[in-house]
Amino acid sequence: MSQTMDFRSDNVASVAPEIMAALERVNHGTVASYGGDAISQRLDGLFSALFEKSVRVFPVSTGSVANALALSVMTPPYGAIYAHSLSHVNGEECGAPEFFSGGARVVGLEGEGGKIAPAMLERALASSGKGFVHCAQPAALTLTQSTEWGRVYSLAEVAALSAIARRAGLGVHMDGARFANAVAGLGCTPADITWRAGIDALSFGATKNGALAVEAIVLFRTELADDLAFRHKRAGQLASKMRFFSAQLEAYVADDLWLKLARHANRLAKRLGEGLARLDGATLVAPVEANEVFVDLPRSMVDGLRTEGALFFGWPEPWVDSPTIRLVTRHDMAEAEVDRLLEVAARLATQVRRSA
Amino acid sequence: MSQTMDFRSDNVASVAPEIMAALERVNHGTVASYGGDAISQRLDGLFSALFEKSVRVFPVSTGSVANALALSVMTPPYGAIYAHSLSHVNGEECGAPEFFSGGARVVGLEGEGGKIAPAMLERALASSGKGFVHCAQPAALTLTQSTEWGRVYSLAEVAALSAIARRAGLGVHMDGARFANAVAGLGCTPADITWRAGIDALSFGATKNGALAVEAIVLFRTELADDLAFRHKRAGQLASKMRFFSAQLEAYVADDLWLKLARHANRLAKRLGEGLARLDGATLVAPVEANEVFVDLPRSMVDGLRTEGALFFGWPEPWVDSPTIRLVTRHDMAEAEVDRLLEVAARLATQVRRSA
Amino acid sequence: MSQTMDFRSDNVASVAPEIMAALERVNHGTVASYGGDAISQRLDGLFSALFEKSVRVFPVSTGSVANALALSVMTPPYGAIYAHSLSHVNGEECGAPEFFSGGARVVGLEGEGGKIAPAMLERALASSGKGFVHCAQPAALTLTQSTEWGRVYSLAEVAALSAIARRAGLGVHMDGARFANAVAGLGCTPADITWRAGIDALSFGATKNGALAVEAIVLFRTELADDLAFRHKRAGQLASKMRFFSAQLEAYVADDLWLKLARHANRLAKRLGEGLARLDGATLVAPVEANEVFVDLPRSMVDGLRTEGALFFGWPEPWVDSPTIRLVTRHDMAEAEVDRLLEVAARLATQVRRSA
Amino acid sequence: MSQTMDFRSDNVASVAPEIMAALERVNHGTVASYGGDAISQRLDGLFSALFEKSVRVFPVSTGSVANALALSVMTPPYGAIYAHSLSHVNGEECGAPEFFSGGARVVGLEGEGGKIAPAMLERALASSGKGFVHCAQPAALTLTQSTEWGRVYSLAEVAALSAIARRAGLGVHMDGARFANAVAGLGCTPADITWRAGIDALSFGATKNGALAVEAIVLFRTELADDLAFRHKRAGQLASKMRFFSAQLEAYVADDLWLKLARHANRLAKRLGEGLARLDGATLVAPVEANEVFVDLPRSMVDGLRTEGALFFGWPEPWVDSPTIRLVTRHDMAEAEVDRLLEVAARLATQVRRSA
Repeated sequence: MSQTMDFRSDNVASVAPEIMAALERVNHGTVASYGGDAISQRLDGLFSALFEKSVRVFPVSTGSVANALALSVMTPPYGAIYAHSLSHVNGEECGAPEFFSGGARVVGLEGEGGKIAPAMLERALASSGKGFVHCAQPAALTLTQSTEWGRVYSLAEVAALSAIARRAGLGVHMDGARFANAVAGLGCTPADITWRAGIDALSFGATKNGALAVEAIVLFRTELADDLAFRHKRAGQLASKMRFFSAQLEAYVADDLWLKLARHANRLAKRLGEGLARLDGATLVAPVEANEVFVDLPRSMVDGLRTEGALFFGWPEPWVDSPTIRLVTRHDMAEAEVDRLLEVAARLATQVRRSA
Repeated sequence: MSQTMDFRSDNVASVAPEIMAALERVNHGTVASYGGDAISQRLDGLFSALFEKSVRVFPVSTGSVANALALSVMTPPYGAIYAHSLSHVNGEECGAPEFFSGGARVVGLEGEGGKIAPAMLERALASSGKGFVHCAQPAALTLTQSTEWGRVYSLAEVAALSAIARRAGLGVHMDGARFANAVAGLGCTPADITWRAGIDALSFGATKNGALAVEAIVLFRTELADDLAFRHKRAGQLASKMRFFSAQLEAYVADDLWLKLARHANRLAKRLGEGLARLDGATLVAPVEANEVFVDLPRSMVDGLRTEGALFFGWPEPWVDSPTIRLVTRHDMAEAEVDRLLEVAARLATQVRRSA
Repeated sequence: MSQTMDFRSDNVASVAPEIMAALERVNHGTVASYGGDAISQRLDGLFSALFEKSVRVFPVSTGSVANALALSVMTPPYGAIYAHSLSHVNGEECGAPEFFSGGARVVGLEGEGGKIAPAMLERALASSGKGFVHCAQPAALTLTQSTEWGRVYSLAEVAALSAIARRAGLGVHMDGARFANAVAGLGCTPADITWRAGIDALSFGATKNGALAVEAIVLFRTELADDLAFRHKRAGQLASKMRFFSAQLEAYVADDLWLKLARHANRLAKRLGEGLARLDGATLVAPVEANEVFVDLPRSMVDGLRTEGALFFGWPEPWVDSPTIRLVTRHDMAEAEVDRLLEVAARLATQVRRSA
Repeated sequence: MSQTMDFRSDNVASVAPEIMAALERVNHGTVASYGGDAISQRLDGLFSALFEKSVRVFPVSTGSVANALALSVMTPPYGAIYAHSLSHVNGEECGAPEFFSGGARVVGLEGEGGKIAPAMLERALASSGKGFVHCAQPAALTLTQSTEWGRVYSLAEVAALSAIARRAGLGVHMDGARFANAVAGLGCTPADITWRAGIDALSFGATKNGALAVEAIVLFRTELADDLAFRHKRAGQLASKMRFFSAQLEAYVADDLWLKLARHANRLAKRLGEGLARLDGATLVAPVEANEVFVDLPRSMVDGLRTEGALFFGWPEPWVDSPTIRLVTRHDMAEAEVDRLLEVAARLATQVRRSA
């Protein structure tokens, strides 16, 4: 569809050709099921190389499962999980963290740009009643990278939050549904922004950035793997034909495909953000650091964009009245798709100015 | 691989070309996520037509999830689920039914050929303490179709068990991981062996019979759908790129593909069973009604088959010493693969006879 | 101990003589266990008379259990429970509501004096994502009566909050750990402040107000009783020697004992509050409506009171630095105990003034 | 009631005078709540002396809670708990073990007299799929002492079962709802039959043997206490007026009261068993080793006893037709109550003989 201007999310995207090709490639002959196949067997090695550390990897089918399972091996049923108030863990998983942990509590914390403010974490821990039997016990911190505002935690920011968490005995998890975009944005190594900065477990996202349907839980604290193996099966995540999940992951990280795809999406977001920032009436409400653009627009412009066929959501929730819209770029987005939206927006901005 | 003799399971299989083609076909452009896409939206209609009744369909990524989620909407946390002692629900899901139901109990029942004996169900219900507050309360019956012994419940058998269950107020679930093989074996309609025989919810298997990774929970009691929708999301089963799960299901049922694939596997199983039955020393221990063959063989023959490269598992568990082996045929199995095993087996049988 | 000035809580109290006498009285002979005894059998009738409506009653051993079990029959595992941020349900039960509900989420709401502000509830419901499968679903509202600030919801306030809750399809629960103090404070009937104002289930407290250890879950929506009966047993709350719990409840409500005890405590709180309010440097920070007094005092006065042997806690948490202290009066408190504290406080206030 | 012949259970009994006196004695003044009182504080010491080992003690309100909580600190949510098929844990707690463990599975084992047969445990462990991710993982063994057939495991029997369990990495729990009767029957020390024989945690029963309502979880593996403390609170078992639970336990073990009470009940059971064994038509179906007698009687005799006012239950379940009845003796039973039943039974036996 030549007219596509779809900025709803990166999960409206297609599967990257390299990944589809990998699925075709492994689709012959018979292999051991439940992860006994050769590709699944080499995942630990593959990710250990990628992260420059011996890790354990568990493929899962969705990001919600990745987060909830990873947190479940750090959190007792009476534990508390600290998450940004805007995070998926806190607000978009219909109680999955509670379900997988057996009843833990998610505590929403504030902080600008979807990043937890260190002071907020410290305050929450100070008033948590740690060791006091009447209170849910601080157990885990989860950071969304990149954040729900398209922001990226710097290495120093992750390290600072991890340090606070560790002093309080918490495990530290990173929700990396858009990990590739964050790493591409930072230009660092995957190791730097994870375990070297204090992360114990990562939800390594792939679906939004070109996979068909797979995420990986990467455990940097490999002693958690025995527990996770059983929870993973019990959650129905041990796929019988695991090769088709593992092959996606293998193709995704081969030859830095994941970073190439993310860099493309990030570049388009940058282009989109810069283009919008130049328009009268448009105000970027967050720096563009990954593949999302947040912009305040006059109502008439928002309506006009929709009339012209642009797809996107209001922010923070579709059902909340707000001048802010979210525009997400994708691995499979053509530059022309961005330019089309900018063109329409520019036209609308002119009209707004005239009618003002 | 010309030498393949892989009878380990139907989940060592590849993806059927028609289904892979469907994945390729839908892999373009952007579509609404989380099931908002056109294919996902028409699944209810598609399956309603297939089952000649208004149904609700929920795609999931594995059979364990399908079973556990389907049972969870019929079973309170203090409920009891009646399952055959050999069934996956009872023994192979690492506590998934308990997890998804919030702590229900699975009660294993006996019966020949993996089929629950009606008398066993009646006895269990009579001694269950129904209404007695000290006892887990009978809540659901689950039938595996085809069974762990490759047997198929007849329409009358399903109806009889369902009737007993309904009189006791139980919901009735069918674990159809090999539903296609059962329907192909029976030659009935999908409706006949499910809701018309008293089934409330079906785990409609596709993965073992040609899909990449998808199963469908089909609710015949559609009033359970509201509850299931939230449990489905909370279990992390609402895939963001749902189109790729839905497209598998659509291709799977289009033009009776599911039945064609199953008929092929069933035919090979028949051929295999008949061939083995003719051999000295081999004893079929169950009639071949779907795509599995169970045969007792002399130890030397079992070892000989393995030496020649045949792959299969001992039965009922790999770690239990038993003369019985299980041979599973597949949608993608060549007739030559069966004939090769028969040929090797015939040769070994001759040797056994000579040395006797 | 003639010097006692114990204002820590009403749960430091003794058992009322009438209740201890009842325990002695029923302590002879044998009776049916697990609630089959005559006293347990007449509880439903007794409370139906007390509440002027047919109710179902379940004795439990603690207030945490009462709250968590009552909420569990209104809340699916993916539900959200709305509670005041200061309430026991939200902060003092170590995850009991999550545990008993199978993983529901407690959402803390604000409001002056420990009362949920209607606007806060409305705002929370509006942004809850009701019906949106990604979000925990609004299920129950719980009101603490009297509140953690010793305040009492008026009939109109309860009715207004219940009405909002009902419009959104929520069940409404009242945590009445100090229900007697609230009813005594309001001078209304138990019916007026509960089901007539929209309450579906009540945690009817007795332990703090003179029982040895018993609370009652009172269901005004009796259709919830079947589910609760099994959850009650499963939670280990069906006492084998139930008569000793039921007898406490019977004695507690006989001849309005519960109200007499509460009126006494309330009167002392009033006296204490009025006495403190007259002192220089002391500021009541909440009206005295039940049996708790909250007062801001100069640090030297707080220290002086402690030196003189007065027992009490800082507020809102022992570990938080705050000028506010909480003073709780009890059913078994002598007026002299209050007067002693007032006398010491008056002396300290004079010293403070002099040194100022 | 001079006519009482109540052999239904030991939980139809009264509270022992010494325990009621203790409740009266502690019922004055104010004390710290939630276990901060002096009696609660000395429980660990008291039980450490009793068991000749440093232990941790948690009072709870019922035996179901004691069992389920004790097992929950040994069992992951995907764990399996091995229990006798007749045990309370397996059949009489409405899913409490599943609830408190977060979904573990109870596996019922057979064995004569309610004692798990070592061979049965070994067989179950051998086929459990330990380490195999598809299977619930063996986690705990629970032994009921004395058993549901009134039998007592010898020291050697407990040690043998514990040894098997430990080799498989299981925790070992003893359900001692009738622990006093077992110890009295064995004439050993409490230490001998528990930790010295390999027990990790004990449900130390008191309610059936003279308490009002209290059981104690005794942890011999004290490293489990930190986890248990939070689970105990979360289950609503941290009583605010804990002194009244702790005082029962203190009085119960003071001066060997618990053993005196149990010896009395055991002696009456012996007397009852011997008396019945002498009657025509009566057959003891289990040796009398604690405070329960199981006897097969002609139907007319069973009916006759009931007509004469004797109270007792059929065995194994009230609703199952069986010639066996269970007669339970109590701490507060008069010898005359036993003699009365024997007298009636003798008379009925004569009539049966005559009519034969």
